[in-house]
Amino acid sequence: MKIAIDAMGGDCGLAATIPASLSILKAHPRIAQIQLFGPEEAINNALHTADLMLADPSLRERLCVRHAEAQINMADKPSSVLRERRESSMLLALRALAVEEVDACVSSGNTGALVALARHSCGVLDGVRSVAICAQLPNLDHPTYLLDVGANVDCTADQLHQFARMGCALVKSNHFQSTRSELKPRVRALSIGIESGKGNQTVTEAVALCSADHSMNFVGLIEANQLLMDDCDVVICDGFSGNIALKACEGTAEYIRRFIHQSSSKDQLPLSESEQRSDRLLQVMQASAFNGAVLLGLKRTVVKSHGGSDAIGFQAAIEKAIMLEQGELTEKMIRQLK
Amino acid sequence: MKIAIDAMGGDCGLAATIPASLSILKAHPRIAQIQLFGPEEAINNALHTADLMLADPSLRERLCVRHAEAQINMADKPSSVLRERRESSMLLALRALAVEEVDACVSSGNTGALVALARHSCGVLDGVRSVAICAQLPNLDHPTYLLDVGANVDCTADQLHQFARMGCALVKSNHFQSTRSELKPRVRALSIGIESGKGNQTVTEAVALCSADHSMNFVGLIEANQLLMDDCDVVICDGFSGNIALKACEGTAEYIRRFIHQSSSKDQLPLSESEQRSDRLLQVMQASAFNGAVLLGLKRTVVKSHGGSDAIGFQAAIEKAIMLEQGELTEKMIRQLK
Repeated sequence: MKIAIDAMGGDCGLAATIPASLSILKAHPRIAQIQLFGPEEAINNALHTADLMLADPSLRERLCVRHAEAQINMADKPSSVLRERRESSMLLALRALAVEEVDACVSSGNTGALVALARHSCGVLDGVRSVAICAQLPNLDHPTYLLDVGANVDCTADQLHQFARMGCALVKSNHFQSTRSELKPRVRALSIGIESGKGNQTVTEAVALCSADHSMNFVGLIEANQLLMDDCDVVICDGFSGNIALKACEGTAEYIRRFIHQSSSKDQLPLSESEQRSDRLLQVMQASAFNGAVLLGLKRTVVKSHGGSDAIGFQAAIEKAIMLEQGELTEKMIRQLK
Repeated sequence: MKIAIDAMGGDCGLAATIPASLSILKAHPRIAQIQLFGPEEAINNALHTADLMLADPSLRERLCVRHAEAQINMADKPSSVLRERRESSMLLALRALAVEEVDACVSSGNTGALVALARHSCGVLDGVRSVAICAQLPNLDHPTYLLDVGANVDCTADQLHQFARMGCALVKSNHFQSTRSELKPRVRALSIGIESGKGNQTVTEAVALCSADHSMNFVGLIEANQLLMDDCDVVICDGFSGNIALKACEGTAEYIRRFIHQSSSKDQLPLSESEQRSDRLLQVMQASAFNGAVLLGLKRTVVKSHGGSDAIGFQAAIEKAIMLEQGELTEKMIRQLK
């Protein structure tokens, strides 16, 4: 498997993407190559000083640096990037994916630009109108997929219904969930109350469409406080509320981590062993469990990492791309969406 | 001060409202009376067996049971409750507030019904178009007010701008914040990115209105992962996304609490002292810090408690009503909104 990395995306840029790529190569001997897209000189400089590279210079053999002059900024409008950022690291990485030089692409760059460029470069699956960004929530006993979390700010009921179908296809394509995949995936719609009719008109119409669709098991509305604790497989929502729900969960985890740290340091107590474990769990939850969202509906595998992700978070996003590609997501999606 | 309690609201009903009311009377000797609205016999039965009442029968002297035949259910439509639930505990409590038999009212009942009935019974302040539900987020160093969290599912830019003005009035009326109240409150708008133009059309228009309003200090967009960690005073949003943001924060806190418990009990280790403290903090955060949202824009003080709140959560909501009333919220709101 070969993976393209937009090395310049996100707030941390090379400081996240280079150590993450090296860690992946070290952890996965079967990854044939990682291609790093960005300014050649800057990438090479970062590689020369990277700890993992110094420890194991042979990792360099599975790395390929592909020069990209430009980069897309967080403030760039999706509508203009195709015209104005033709030589950007993100677009060149997606082009390599489109022509099958690589098997998956990971970027933590501008979300709107990534969706627009991925759609343009790789194309969408037959019958798919809108690409959705799908996050995997770290529920205690099984994953719940939340979509859309940011590609489509305003959605129609038809779009929400299609998100439900794409989410179900993802559940069924997940080879780690063989027992659940035989059942119809359980689907809910995110709203502000669980009683029928709570929420807005679009949600109400989407509920009707999903309830009538016998390819899924639509089990009703869900409130955001149950997102991490419910037994369902897929939660559908528009990209505005989904993005807010996901980031609120993530922010609260970080807030509690700081809170525990502050109260420990105030008392000048060392963190107890089990507290350290809780703290590590919170860190992991923060950096990785919430990170790495898949762009659903594309003909190729593209994973979006959080714009603020550090090396650990970015590594988790690459791990997700590997897992999806190993699970033959796209092939299974095509069959499921027929 | 006298407080009306809708004793039948919420998932827990009397099991939450009775112990909470008794705890408040015990903790606040200066609260002259709590009036409990609901079926007389059921309330009296609950009072007879309540622990706090058995321990201190004199609390009964400051309690007044006011009979209400009916109650509003979570599934009732706001449009029909005024017609069909004329003798409900919620409506009778609000009527007592409207005619100044009490100073504040607290309910954990159906949100839509509470907003509609409060608006109808108590009236809105001059110039206020929409009542907003305003939650206080438990940020580490100062409170941030988030509104709307559920009264208005769809909002115009004008409404969001008015929410900003009402939130600023609340900041300035908060007598615990004298140093901050002399400054212009810092206002942000909730969106899915912080770069100008991120989000939907309504948010973009609201940003323009707030930026041009010199009564506040509008400092830009905010993403949901910063809600608990930002330095701003007020965050505006529509009631759909605000409700989702608030409940996602609350749900994550609960999720982490269960997570810490599970990992402790799995290892059969007792909770360490500092872990117990963290655990208590999480419990408090869950039950109270997120609970008790004020209905802004009304002529009288109404606090909405979470539908699922237990006795501790409901007590926190009553505490909030006491604090607002002591701060003379409504009087100060009238001056601020002029």
